[in-house]
Amino acid sequence: MIQFSAEQVAEVLQGTVVGNPEVKVHTVAKIEEATQGALAFLANPKYKDYLYTTGASIVLVNNDFKPEKEVQATLIKVPDAYQAFASLMEMVAEALYEKKNGIEQPSFMHETATHGEGLYLGAFAYIGKNVKMGKNVKIYPQVYIGDNVKIGDDTILYAGCKIYHDCVLGSNVTIHSGAVIGADGFGFAPTDTANYKKIPQIGNVILEDFVEIGSNTTVDRATMGHTIIRKGAKLDNLIQIGHNVEVGESTVMAAQAGVAGSTKIGRNCMFGGQAGITGHITVADEVKLTAKAGVLSSIEEKGAILMGAPAFNISDFRKSYVYFRKLPELESRLRSIEKKTQDK
Amino acid sequence: MIQFSAEQVAEVLQGTVVGNPEVKVHTVAKIEEATQGALAFLANPKYKDYLYTTGASIVLVNNDFKPEKEVQATLIKVPDAYQAFASLMEMVAEALYEKKNGIEQPSFMHETATHGEGLYLGAFAYIGKNVKMGKNVKIYPQVYIGDNVKIGDDTILYAGCKIYHDCVLGSNVTIHSGAVIGADGFGFAPTDTANYKKIPQIGNVILEDFVEIGSNTTVDRATMGHTIIRKGAKLDNLIQIGHNVEVGESTVMAAQAGVAGSTKIGRNCMFGGQAGITGHITVADEVKLTAKAGVLSSIEEKGAILMGAPAFNISDFRKSYVYFRKLPELESRLRSIEKKTQDK
Amino acid sequence: MIQFSAEQVAEVLQGTVVGNPEVKVHTVAKIEEATQGALAFLANPKYKDYLYTTGASIVLVNNDFKPEKEVQATLIKVPDAYQAFASLMEMVAEALYEKKNGIEQPSFMHETATHGEGLYLGAFAYIGKNVKMGKNVKIYPQVYIGDNVKIGDDTILYAGCKIYHDCVLGSNVTIHSGAVIGADGFGFAPTDTANYKKIPQIGNVILEDFVEIGSNTTVDRATMGHTIIRKGAKLDNLIQIGHNVEVGESTVMAAQAGVAGSTKIGRNCMFGGQAGITGHITVADEVKLTAKAGVLSSIEEKGAILMGAPAFNISDFRKSYVYFRKLPELESRLRSIEKKTQDK
Repeated sequence: MIQFSAEQVAEVLQGTVVGNPEVKVHTVAKIEEATQGALAFLANPKYKDYLYTTGASIVLVNNDFKPEKEVQATLIKVPDAYQAFASLMEMVAEALYEKKNGIEQPSFMHETATHGEGLYLGAFAYIGKNVKMGKNVKIYPQVYIGDNVKIGDDTILYAGCKIYHDCVLGSNVTIHSGAVIGADGFGFAPTDTANYKKIPQIGNVILEDFVEIGSNTTVDRATMGHTIIRKGAKLDNLIQIGHNVEVGESTVMAAQAGVAGSTKIGRNCMFGGQAGITGHITVADEVKLTAKAGVLSSIEEKGAILMGAPAFNISDFRKSYVYFRKLPELESRLRSIEKKTQDK
Repeated sequence: MIQFSAEQVAEVLQGTVVGNPEVKVHTVAKIEEATQGALAFLANPKYKDYLYTTGASIVLVNNDFKPEKEVQATLIKVPDAYQAFASLMEMVAEALYEKKNGIEQPSFMHETATHGEGLYLGAFAYIGKNVKMGKNVKIYPQVYIGDNVKIGDDTILYAGCKIYHDCVLGSNVTIHSGAVIGADGFGFAPTDTANYKKIPQIGNVILEDFVEIGSNTTVDRATMGHTIIRKGAKLDNLIQIGHNVEVGESTVMAAQAGVAGSTKIGRNCMFGGQAGITGHITVADEVKLTAKAGVLSSIEEKGAILMGAPAFNISDFRKSYVYFRKLPELESRLRSIEKKTQDK
Repeated sequence: MIQFSAEQVAEVLQGTVVGNPEVKVHTVAKIEEATQGALAFLANPKYKDYLYTTGASIVLVNNDFKPEKEVQATLIKVPDAYQAFASLMEMVAEALYEKKNGIEQPSFMHETATHGEGLYLGAFAYIGKNVKMGKNVKIYPQVYIGDNVKIGDDTILYAGCKIYHDCVLGSNVTIHSGAVIGADGFGFAPTDTANYKKIPQIGNVILEDFVEIGSNTTVDRATMGHTIIRKGAKLDNLIQIGHNVEVGESTVMAAQAGVAGSTKIGRNCMFGGQAGITGHITVADEVKLTAKAGVLSSIEEKGAILMGAPAFNISDFRKSYVYFRKLPELESRLRSIEKKTQDK
């Protein structure tokens, strides 16, 4: 078990120790759950009461924080406690998990595939024809990479994700297990007999730099052209992205959200879980959708916040919903007036 | 880069060239996005304005189409521009993507498994005992096929899909990556202690000819008997089909829809994304559900269109929703009348 | 084909034969679908009419059941027909499906991994460093088990499920194909530039004894600490469980439900399909959610039943929904009163 003293942590974070600089920690924890030997942080003032009851040995706080009572834990003051904690987590993760390296056997790499230094290729991974991989690419076991795929530097593909042919992945992309990138979009032409004729899907998917794709999320290839997930966008688990969709920079979507084909979504949007967006529409930048929102038409207002299915302005939805819950009461008020006015 | 002249394309499609028969194309594109060297099509009159501004070198149009202004592109007139385009896409896809063939190593085929000619077996694919495969079956890397599975001719299983034991797949079936066919249905008998006893699921799944199953979709095996997806039905990604469900011929479902156990769905139905259907009910032929619709009881009317959760007739739902959005206003109108009638 | 006589079945179930003890069965079926040679059961009185028309050769009935008409089938009377049938299904399943055993090649087991007797390790399965497996663990082909994972006795991992490093699985756990246990939770710290910085996820997932996880379900690892699925909980397919969630004992969730990060759910809850629960809340024991319910705040009442999105008491929701459907009519009643009161 590796331990660090408050003094050592403060040095790394360039913070100031308030309390015992000798106290040692060996793990990190949430302030409300932390016990002796743990380091926690306090960033959100909402949680400040926990500071006086926490079992944590060390707590990171913002420089301007002033305790109102006595504190058992040693404090380390830093400019931004949350950022400092995130940095520390990174150091912990690096210490805990060695970077995977080398080529495990059996694995399958076509003779025409190329790669830079620092490759990890797990057992049972499959690399197709003409695949081009940059430096420090980490491919976990049982990953499938179809023909002609391009992968940038420092990209990580976790166990068993599947990348169909011709897709392009930027650098620092992360894809979790079970995600499927580039399967055929849902393209069928109805025929006279009410059967469907499959339309070949000859486009691809482009994931730009710093994109993260959650477990079992599916991003369909374009019918023609590209399905594009822009730089820094983050998709949680079990999300569906239809063919020819474009997701803007740094947009984030929570689990089980879905976007139908050919829709274009702006940058810095935030979509709640199980939200759904219809096809062939446009969503402005910085739009927020609550969980389960259902969007049926384009959203032009930057920064709009929508709720409901079909979705509209969140505060209007909430007002309507208050009365929805009171509908039986409204109806009985209506009935009582009807009676009154009939009586006369 | 392979190129085709307008004349060559027209010959293949049995169409008529209007314009320069020598102009050449090397790709296909949407009419609104096409640039020089691309072939596009115009089927929907809604898009006709693009014809005069498109950069496409060739545009397929219907025989009866008459341009209203001068057109830069060479036109090829055909009886049905969309169908002609779909056929062309198929030819392009065939030219672009060679059919996979042969057996890659290492792969695993049990000695009792049999197959017809034209098999592709990708590396790390697993074929269990007594599996029977027809002609031209294409099994991509990392596919799993359990014991006793039967697979018809010309069926394609993309990388990493999983077929549990005893399932039956027809011919011309397509299954995308990550789909799971035949896992145990959700069958648990409550016991006295509020725990659950697992009920073995000894039925199977039958996918008839021309069925297509999207990425990460799950179709559970029957408790007893069969879960059946009928001929030509198309399921998009991340769909759940419960045990003992029957999906009718040529029915299509968009991504993230779900059908609970023992429900029977008619033919030529169309379900929107994230629609949900409860268990043990019947849905008539040609029923349409909007995205996010929630169906709680049988639908007997052929061709009904439903919306909402719980779902009812789409035009009734829309009318109700108009007033839902106005509920605060309705309440204030009610209050103002209450005041008036009290005053008297 | 193995056959059993009514006498033999009755002996196994300790029941009493009414009718021909020599009649033989070779399969099981639902009473409404059963044909000659099949055994069926009648537990729910709702189905009793089928008893007089069924083609089943043997029907299990409760001891206190008295036929009202002549019955063709041989009856076997038992204390609990459903439980007896479930037991019989188990015996059938055991007879039908031999237990997998032994180590198929090629598979990958790190030299530091350990296991008890009765192991099945399918081809192309991957076992990382320091993995510890108990007795009778069954690992199907293409499963991935990351470093330091612990697995209890009699646990079954079906083809292609993925378990990330450091997770802990109890005994008698069942995980279906495509499920992903322990992928990174959705943890990103917003930075000044509206990009996101990934927060390493250094916790794990604990699945306690008798947990069953459906196909393509995802359970994220904790940021710190544990995501926990308690003893006997059953999760259907395509479910999302966020980081640091706790699911109580014997709680069951239907397909496509989702629970956001850090929420704590009680025991013996039942959630319908596509239900969604927001993050950082608490749900009491025995709470029921209908399909598609959306929960936005803690539920403190034990046994509460909720419907709608946002969800509230089911009978209140239903009453409100009745009037929602009648909103156009309510508005017209309101308008007619307005007219009346204006006239005066």
